[in-house]
Amino acid sequence: MSHSKQLEQRLLEEIEGIRAIDVHSHVPAREPFARSLRDLLGYHYYTELAHSAGMSKETIAPDRPDDEMIPDLLRAMEAIDNTAQYRWLVELAQELFGFEHGRLTPHNWQPLARAVREAADEPDRASAILDASNIEKVFLTNSHDEDLEAIDTDLFVPCLRADDLVFRIEQPAVRHSLEAVTGVGLSDGDSLTRALGELVGRFREHGAASVAISLPPGFSAEPVADGALDTIFQRALRGEVAPQDAAMLHSGVLFALTAQCAEHALPFQVMCGALRGAYPHGVHQGRDLPVAGDTLRGLLPLLNAFPGVTFCLSVLSDSQVQELGSYGWILQNVVLSGHWWYLNVPEHVARDLTARLQSVPKTKLIGYYSDMYKLEFGLAKFGMYRRVLARVLAREFVSRGYGTERQAVEIARLLLRENALRIFRLEDG
Amino acid sequence: MSHSKQLEQRLLEEIEGIRAIDVHSHVPAREPFARSLRDLLGYHYYTELAHSAGMSKETIAPDRPDDEMIPDLLRAMEAIDNTAQYRWLVELAQELFGFEHGRLTPHNWQPLARAVREAADEPDRASAILDASNIEKVFLTNSHDEDLEAIDTDLFVPCLRADDLVFRIEQPAVRHSLEAVTGVGLSDGDSLTRALGELVGRFREHGAASVAISLPPGFSAEPVADGALDTIFQRALRGEVAPQDAAMLHSGVLFALTAQCAEHALPFQVMCGALRGAYPHGVHQGRDLPVAGDTLRGLLPLLNAFPGVTFCLSVLSDSQVQELGSYGWILQNVVLSGHWWYLNVPEHVARDLTARLQSVPKTKLIGYYSDMYKLEFGLAKFGMYRRVLARVLAREFVSRGYGTERQAVEIARLLLRENALRIFRLEDG
Amino acid sequence: MSHSKQLEQRLLEEIEGIRAIDVHSHVPAREPFARSLRDLLGYHYYTELAHSAGMSKETIAPDRPDDEMIPDLLRAMEAIDNTAQYRWLVELAQELFGFEHGRLTPHNWQPLARAVREAADEPDRASAILDASNIEKVFLTNSHDEDLEAIDTDLFVPCLRADDLVFRIEQPAVRHSLEAVTGVGLSDGDSLTRALGELVGRFREHGAASVAISLPPGFSAEPVADGALDTIFQRALRGEVAPQDAAMLHSGVLFALTAQCAEHALPFQVMCGALRGAYPHGVHQGRDLPVAGDTLRGLLPLLNAFPGVTFCLSVLSDSQVQELGSYGWILQNVVLSGHWWYLNVPEHVARDLTARLQSVPKTKLIGYYSDMYKLEFGLAKFGMYRRVLARVLAREFVSRGYGTERQAVEIARLLLRENALRIFRLEDG
Repeated sequence: MSHSKQLEQRLLEEIEGIRAIDVHSHVPAREPFARSLRDLLGYHYYTELAHSAGMSKETIAPDRPDDEMIPDLLRAMEAIDNTAQYRWLVELAQELFGFEHGRLTPHNWQPLARAVREAADEPDRASAILDASNIEKVFLTNSHDEDLEAIDTDLFVPCLRADDLVFRIEQPAVRHSLEAVTGVGLSDGDSLTRALGELVGRFREHGAASVAISLPPGFSAEPVADGALDTIFQRALRGEVAPQDAAMLHSGVLFALTAQCAEHALPFQVMCGALRGAYPHGVHQGRDLPVAGDTLRGLLPLLNAFPGVTFCLSVLSDSQVQELGSYGWILQNVVLSGHWWYLNVPEHVARDLTARLQSVPKTKLIGYYSDMYKLEFGLAKFGMYRRVLARVLAREFVSRGYGTERQAVEIARLLLRENALRIFRLEDG
Repeated sequence: MSHSKQLEQRLLEEIEGIRAIDVHSHVPAREPFARSLRDLLGYHYYTELAHSAGMSKETIAPDRPDDEMIPDLLRAMEAIDNTAQYRWLVELAQELFGFEHGRLTPHNWQPLARAVREAADEPDRASAILDASNIEKVFLTNSHDEDLEAIDTDLFVPCLRADDLVFRIEQPAVRHSLEAVTGVGLSDGDSLTRALGELVGRFREHGAASVAISLPPGFSAEPVADGALDTIFQRALRGEVAPQDAAMLHSGVLFALTAQCAEHALPFQVMCGALRGAYPHGVHQGRDLPVAGDTLRGLLPLLNAFPGVTFCLSVLSDSQVQELGSYGWILQNVVLSGHWWYLNVPEHVARDLTARLQSVPKTKLIGYYSDMYKLEFGLAKFGMYRRVLARVLAREFVSRGYGTERQAVEIARLLLRENALRIFRLEDG
Repeated sequence: MSHSKQLEQRLLEEIEGIRAIDVHSHVPAREPFARSLRDLLGYHYYTELAHSAGMSKETIAPDRPDDEMIPDLLRAMEAIDNTAQYRWLVELAQELFGFEHGRLTPHNWQPLARAVREAADEPDRASAILDASNIEKVFLTNSHDEDLEAIDTDLFVPCLRADDLVFRIEQPAVRHSLEAVTGVGLSDGDSLTRALGELVGRFREHGAASVAISLPPGFSAEPVADGALDTIFQRALRGEVAPQDAAMLHSGVLFALTAQCAEHALPFQVMCGALRGAYPHGVHQGRDLPVAGDTLRGLLPLLNAFPGVTFCLSVLSDSQVQELGSYGWILQNVVLSGHWWYLNVPEHVARDLTARLQSVPKTKLIGYYSDMYKLEFGLAKFGMYRRVLARVLAREFVSRGYGTERQAVEIARLLLRENALRIFRLEDG
């Protein structure tokens, strides 16, 4: 093995020993791991890629039995065995369930399905998966009216997902659920602010470490004065918000919510640029797309209005990645967070990580999060990231004389763990 | 040689053995290969780069004799001997004409010129070039009123180029030629649909395997109801389409033509983003540019309206490449096609290919097409691509554990040949 | 060492022997080098990155003594020791001041501070720094009313910075200073043209080799007829330019100034895409950002209107880099210049340089400029670039068969020196 390959290998071993914090996932607190192979194969990466490769949506109809559905899906998945996503599946099957093949086929899936079922019945399964993945804690995505009592805060960190509150506040159902959970009657801008304060406070009490939202491409955050928010919110209460005024209402709520982040010292995780429902023919969760040329510029009024709130930003389009890096480079309240969705591909991760390491303070990089729906994927996704990180640190940091091997490992520790602990004020377990 | 270099070499040998399909070119069916060195040097890459480097347009005036023009052009081309395009020229000169130097100069061009002339007189020259290039078939670009009888369909595949039909249908000359070739009098929207149906049917009968169009940056495809198309087309017949309505007319024709692709089961090759005539001082074919930040978003209504039509998409701007990848990732009817024009540069090809292989079904990647005007360039362009493909598969696929060497070769076979055969329903020769 | 590493090393030695021309800097002619460590640490890269990493602006208040300020700043800079910018500092400290550590800390800065002070008193210090950096000449950035007599033209090349003239001509102070320096009373469009002519002529006489300007994102250059410029400029003289007409005024002045570049055969250095004041909380010079998806398209009218003026273009957003390459590829009057600001990061430099070398005439690439404020940084910045250049030429040019080692060195000589000499018509010293 060459010297540089050996260096990469040594770094990887160190990096695999770092207990990671996963700051963004969609893991359901009550069903955090797969009970069946179907649960794993139901991840939208597989269904959307198989559908994209020609599989009909009927193939994966919920009422089809495993014995029919799974072989059909796996046949379709032959077309995607080149992808990083496919490799996640093989990796977790091998590492967590003793799967011994390099491809999952209609002929070898049954022992794996059995292993998944059996493992699901083992005690402390969630912990076991996280141990195998060397992940300490996993952030959840919780709606404002979710029951937070049920969450095992030894393993999970709640996070208030604010998309409904901000973008659908004109819907009575959203307002009613906010009233129900906070006990605040919504009658004007003031009461809205109070309700948001109650809500964020309640999340904080239950261990929440951040608020999160996904913003559409081209989103423009316009400061809305308190009086103006009151006026438009009262119109919303009467169901009289015209479509052209909805943007102002949403901006107003976004600013009011961010003010609560400031009040309760919670970072705001903002994912920018998903065009929702762009492909209506797609499978569930396989209908959204990035938009090339999108920019963070529209977010500046929000970022500038709350210099005391830490914004952990993620973007979806490659054409914005360097812009995001520049924001992290000069804005004190911007942290770069992970490699999201369509950019969570090794080639992009490697490029983006290299540029970030060369130009953004190391304390402002949250290296990675899983975005997963089931805990098993953390192993494979973080595994992929750890390998890219080891490679980039070996080639671009140590070999180019930026620092020592020890310093490289310290950077890795910041990216995988310590920055998250500090930024989200978690206890170091 | 290192192990990884040896792996790359072995893969390259396998890849060079794959008989490629070239799905897009501008080769003229009657003059498919060069009759003179001038024909080769007349490729716009050389004239535009030499002009860009300072050569006046008069240098390459058609009436200047070879003995004057060629040395002058070659002197100007010293400034471009660093480029991939220059290397194409050297490579094809070496491989097809026994040229022995690494640079083509005013002092060594004459034997090459003689070799080109002599080779042009050899029997079955087109076949010989394709054999040397290991290319089986080459798609042409045929205008709607072209004589399709003259095409040697053993070597070539016709393709209907639809730019005039869609974007210049308001010009009487375009309509008259459409009427002449289809025998359908154009009097309303209905007759337009019939004429397009006749036309596409006629192309299909002559072995055409696709329709192709080039769309301008920022193109927005707006569905136009049948009645609305009828109204606006009748205005066009009367010469009364206002400039601001032309976009609606063009969208209407585009949808009507795409409906015929659906009807006749023909894929639609769409090249997105060339700003035509951006640099009027440029040489012939050297006046168009990409536009940074362009997006495919405006194409979504078309892609969604025809889920049964396969769209083979190419883009011109690096800032759209990842967006295109995401489209191929989830849209069943989108195929990623080649590396077009300003992106047909090894650095971009390598990056883009790597990300595609990591995230798009392998069955949805048409690896490469030549876009050439003379067959000789297929050798050099596909040669360049084969080397990049071998490198990327060695480094990013096999060495990173994504699959075996044999699986890598199978992927190469899909990208160079089998996907094109399947998608365009060609017979496997 | 591997063969390819040896090749890279040999190329680097040759490249380090090339005496570079630095075509863009902000070095002040009267204070070209640092008199104190504070001068070096005051470079905005360090203050903005340290501020971004959490340091308060008060930490670097001008009235704080070195003994307090410097240790505090260095403590904050621990968070940025991963960056390329940090490495510049270490490299210049080691090479120019005998600093022996890999990190600059609150505990080891004092000997360095002493070395900087002592070196500042040495005779011919500016020359000595340039010799150590192997840089022959450094372009300055001079406002239109600057005293050009004071400039040592053995070391420096004046350059007229035109931002005020073009974008703030409606301000009386700008016009008055233009009148003062040219002796032309501004009363109409004609007198404006005369004043600009006088000004550019005066700069030319004092050895200026170019005009330079920075354009905002989305800038659209609209040709303004002489009569229209006269009308709007007269309105400006009366203080009656409405905000919506300012763009027309600025475009008019820009075209008039470019006409003087044509008249006086001066290249125009244009830096595109800085969004000024985007982050008002930032430190001095740390408030501007790139905008993703920005495009050069709006510049085409200017580029096309003056085919005889050489435009040396730089961009700020990664999403424009390939567009810029395409402009250099076909536009005779466009030269690609360096790697600017947020793109001056090794990962971006390497990628962009590779694509440029593969697709743009080698005579049209100004490889690099420092953009520095103090001469010391030239050593480190050019040092970084020379290493990237050696690596790219070794890996992408020589090893891939594009040319010989000798040809690679000749390309490097063009990029670092000869293109600048030719384009700016400097004497070859």
